Amino acid sequence: MKDTHDPRNGTTHSNGTVHIPFTPGDRFRWDGIDVKAYSSTTAVSDRITKQILFHADENLCSEVRYFEAEPGGYSALEKHAHVHAVVILRGHGTALVGREIITVRTHDVVFTPPDTWHQFYAAPDSHLGFLCIVNGERVRPIRPVDADLEELMRDPVLKRVIR
Amino acid sequence: MKDTHDPRNGTTHSNGTVHIPFTPGDRFRWDGIDVKAYSSTTAVSDRITKQILFHADENLCSEVRYFEAEPGGYSALEKHAHVHAVVILRGHGTALVGREIITVRTHDVVFTPPDTWHQFYAAPDSHLGFLCIVNGERVRPIRPVDADLEELMRDPVLKRVIR
Repeated sequence: MKDTHDPRNGTTHSNGTVHIPFTPGDRFRWDGIDVKAYSSTTAVSDRITKQILFHADENLCSEVRYFEAEPGGYSALEKHAHVHAVVILRGHGTALVGREIITVRTHDVVFTPPDTWHQFYAAPDSHLGFLCIVNGERVRPIRPVDADLEELMRDPVLKRVIR
Repeated sequence: MKDTHDPRNGTTHSNGTVHIPFTPGDRFRWDGIDVKAYSSTTAVSDRITKQILFHADENLCSEVRYFEAEPGGYSALEKHAHVHAVVILRGHGTALVGREIITVRTHDVVFTPPDTWHQFYAAPDSHLGFLCIVNGERVRPIRPVDADLEELMRDPVLKRVIR
C-alpha cells in the first residue's frame, strides 16, 4: 500500500490514503517521520527529541508533535501566549505547570495555559513520550531570564524540580 | 492537587495547573471527561463513544477528541472539507480512507484528507481507540446518499468493509 501523503510537507500533499505505521523500538518512531533535535533555539538537554506527526497548513490549523525524553531527560522551561494540549503516550514523569508539580503517567492529559511556565521531565527510570498539539500560528516561546529563575527558585519545591 | 481547568468548558477556565489523569478500565476514561454519544446526527452503531479531551477556543484552534469503538464497532462513513489527524491509542482494526483499506494498530497515525470518504472499524476481537484532532471551525460532515453508496459498493473490496 503506497502512502502518497508526506506529512513532513504539510497536508497539501494529501492526494491519497495516509497511513503512517508506528515502528516500535527503543524510541517511539513512525515510518518516514524524521527525528529532530528538540529545539534550535534553546541549549536544553539533548536527551529529548521531536517528531512532527502533522504539520499545520491550510487544512489543519494545529501541529501535532511527539516529544520523547530519555530517562532523566526534560524539555525546556518556557512560557508563551499559546497553549499546549498534551497527551502522554509513553512512560511516566513529572510536569511543572505554573507553580504546580504534577506526576504524569501514560495517557494522562495535561494542559499548559497561556503565559504559564512549564517543563516536562522523564522519571530517572522511564522514558516520557507525549503528543503536544499546538496552534500552527504562534509566536516563539519565552525562556526565563535570571530574574525569572530567581523568582521561581525561591520556592523550594520548584527549586528541586526545575532544570 | 486541584485542577482548576475544566476542558469541557474550553481553555478559558485555565487559571491554574491542569492535569486530567487517565483512569484505566474496560473503556479508556479520563477524570471528569464525559463519555458522549458518538454523534447526534447519525444513526450509526452505538458501539462507539466520544470524549472531548480539549475543546477549541480562542487559545486553541483545534479540538482533541478520543473515540473508542468496542470490538466490532465502527464510526460513521462520512466526508468533509476539514481533515482529521488521527493517532491510534488503543487496540487495532481497519480504516477506510478514500478507496484504501488500511490495517491500523496502536500508535499508528492516519490522515483523512479533505472531501474523502472515511470510516474506522474496530477488529472483531479488539477495541479501537483513537485521538482525532480536528479544526475547531468546521462544517458538518456529509453522509453518503444512496448514489454514493452504490458507487462505493461497486468495488467488491469496499463492499466487504463498509458498514
